[in-house]
Amino acid sequence: MIKANNPSLKSWIQVPADSDFPIQNIPFGIVVRESGHKLATIIGDTVIDLAELYHGGMFDGLGLDASVFENEFINDFMALGKAQNRVVRDRISVIFQEGNQELQGNESLMASALIPASEATLSMPVKVGDYTDFYSSRDHAYNVGCMFRDPNNALLPNWLHLPVGYHGRASSIVVSGTPLKRPKGQQMPAGADKPVYGPCRLLDFELEVAFVIGKETALGDTISMDSAEEHIFGLVLFNDWSARDIQKWEYVPLGPFLGKNFGSSISPWVVTLDALEPFRTESPKQNDPEPLPYLKNTEDRNYDINLFVDINPESGEGKTVCESNFKYMYWNMCQQLTHHTVNGCNVKVGDMCASGTISGPERGSFGSMLEISWKGTKPVDMPDGSQRKFINDGDTVTMRGYGERNGVRIGFGEVSGKILPAD
Amino acid sequence: MIKANNPSLKSWIQVPADSDFPIQNIPFGIVVRESGHKLATIIGDTVIDLAELYHGGMFDGLGLDASVFENEFINDFMALGKAQNRVVRDRISVIFQEGNQELQGNESLMASALIPASEATLSMPVKVGDYTDFYSSRDHAYNVGCMFRDPNNALLPNWLHLPVGYHGRASSIVVSGTPLKRPKGQQMPAGADKPVYGPCRLLDFELEVAFVIGKETALGDTISMDSAEEHIFGLVLFNDWSARDIQKWEYVPLGPFLGKNFGSSISPWVVTLDALEPFRTESPKQNDPEPLPYLKNTEDRNYDINLFVDINPESGEGKTVCESNFKYMYWNMCQQLTHHTVNGCNVKVGDMCASGTISGPERGSFGSMLEISWKGTKPVDMPDGSQRKFINDGDTVTMRGYGERNGVRIGFGEVSGKILPAD
Repeated sequence: MIKANNPSLKSWIQVPADSDFPIQNIPFGIVVRESGHKLATIIGDTVIDLAELYHGGMFDGLGLDASVFENEFINDFMALGKAQNRVVRDRISVIFQEGNQELQGNESLMASALIPASEATLSMPVKVGDYTDFYSSRDHAYNVGCMFRDPNNALLPNWLHLPVGYHGRASSIVVSGTPLKRPKGQQMPAGADKPVYGPCRLLDFELEVAFVIGKETALGDTISMDSAEEHIFGLVLFNDWSARDIQKWEYVPLGPFLGKNFGSSISPWVVTLDALEPFRTESPKQNDPEPLPYLKNTEDRNYDINLFVDINPESGEGKTVCESNFKYMYWNMCQQLTHHTVNGCNVKVGDMCASGTISGPERGSFGSMLEISWKGTKPVDMPDGSQRKFINDGDTVTMRGYGERNGVRIGFGEVSGKILPAD
Repeated sequence: MIKANNPSLKSWIQVPADSDFPIQNIPFGIVVRESGHKLATIIGDTVIDLAELYHGGMFDGLGLDASVFENEFINDFMALGKAQNRVVRDRISVIFQEGNQELQGNESLMASALIPASEATLSMPVKVGDYTDFYSSRDHAYNVGCMFRDPNNALLPNWLHLPVGYHGRASSIVVSGTPLKRPKGQQMPAGADKPVYGPCRLLDFELEVAFVIGKETALGDTISMDSAEEHIFGLVLFNDWSARDIQKWEYVPLGPFLGKNFGSSISPWVVTLDALEPFRTESPKQNDPEPLPYLKNTEDRNYDINLFVDINPESGEGKTVCESNFKYMYWNMCQQLTHHTVNGCNVKVGDMCASGTISGPERGSFGSMLEISWKGTKPVDMPDGSQRKFINDGDTVTMRGYGERNGVRIGFGEVSGKILPAD
């Protein structure tokens, strides 16, 4: 298996020092070529069309079908299972390792398979079946509870006993770079006696990380804490765009609906759990209260991954408004997946589970404008002199994330989305 | 187009008097044959393999591809569009009309295409992309509000202004006949200071009707009240199984999750909106308050469809515990779909939207055991001397539904599911 934390591993493809994609990463995504959608990976600033490598014989002997490479999504690749996924990832790392001549000696194959990232069109990597959003950052839940309820009673009674989650909309998950129109809908203005219809005025981002299911279960089966990682193929950055005014009016008693389902954005590269192994870090102590036995955590299951959110106005300089970290999660991914299936709910390859907003303990690490601007009471000063309580038309929100250890940086690239004015 | 309300239309296939499937109905589903899954319909007690008819030349000249008939789901058929769907439905009604000899003259084709319903295996008709559940029966919302809040304040402030809805789980929607295990999970017993883990003790059904999307929209587009019906292919009966104790503990603040997603059951035949046209009936007056203009209803958009729920114990006589009607909906399907997309949320072919529990004004028409037994305070007497507050292990819950006008009865058949003990 690739030693993701081996700093001596180098590629013959040039990798800039601040790249998220050294040869230790090898994430999976989909690149759109003239002849269709292809399974792809990236090293440095070079996107690699794996279908071309397949047809060029580079995966001969591995028993792989062309349909896995010539595919609109990576789902069929994930469905091969972790053992086979690792074989492919290892093989890629061999082909591109410094000194290896298999591909370097074949100029026409190099020309057809390697694409400068700036010229590559990446599409939705995953066909998402069901999408679930959790609410697992304690600081985020506390902040929201303070704002909407009471600082002395900020967490609801269930929050420390289970990873609260709800179902979201899969159809409107889009890949980074897809612009979104400001949603319209019903809101109840403060003091009004009836709702109004119009464009959302409190448009927000939520900084999240989502995991992708690579191994299905049957209806009625459960996933235990110890087997959960076997079902997780990899992770993406996830912007859970939120229309706060629409959400506030609609969400009782059945939860968020139109305040969320107008769009969610994901990063185009699915980074494998294997690649993130070096960043595994201790999980928060859960002893007040202890979770029920089925949720009890006995290992390090958090990940030390730096996360950033930038707001870039249409004209004018941008600003990083949040620096957070995936390690801040109170409930980890294994607990989320174990809880999700404790009742026999089945999961399918391509299902996506997002973390919920990942806020750290200080304002600079809060993962949404709702928290950063504290309901609009503390606007953010932008370099161009403007202020932000929420997101303006023309703003592009970009999330970035990477871990770094022993000089090896492994990251997600970015998920970026621009807000267009409402119709 | 088929005159669904024309009582003089007869088939050469025998149709029992109480059948839901006269030649005026022609619903669509999937039958499992030795050679695979096939598009199918039903007349009386005879399931018709439409792929066999296709290969037998019965649809020649209609420009249809074999893949629509040789398919695991009806999605590709729905995606052809209503105009083409109607051509196929009309053609079927001609082939099976009394006096028509095209098929009757071909004994081998008849033998291969016609299957006694008692011998036919029906599978999930629709590949469900996203599933949404609404909460649109006023009596149901009022009952729940009375039980959990206050009879003087039973409806939450938003309820009369918009069709409250939330996203559900698509992966665990199963076809009628699929048994379900009693789910396990966390519950907070009354008076306890910490939650317990174990089998659900308050297992319930919810009587619902769901519509299936047949025409997609792009992200950012909206559907208006006047165009909504163009996007609805047809309807199924829907049992939204609910674990009340799990739901009660988990659902704040983000809505139902594990209390619902262990399974939902649907009837195997999708009855087209065209077939239900004769049962269109007036919608309830909405003038206190009036909805916002985008939701305003100016036509009859409710449907007079009788609905029934039976509980059949493993041994012992069953009982009809609910007689309700689809016409009781306060928010109709067009309002639900219009609201769902007002923010630009896209819909895809195969998406399913369920009505929410359909309760009428009296106890006998309440659509869940929660309401029928009024939180367990008014148990139902069963013919075998036992009582039901909720659903027992071994119970089979069966929902049935049909409309009847001018002597023509058009129905759904049934959705039935047995509850197995927890592991």
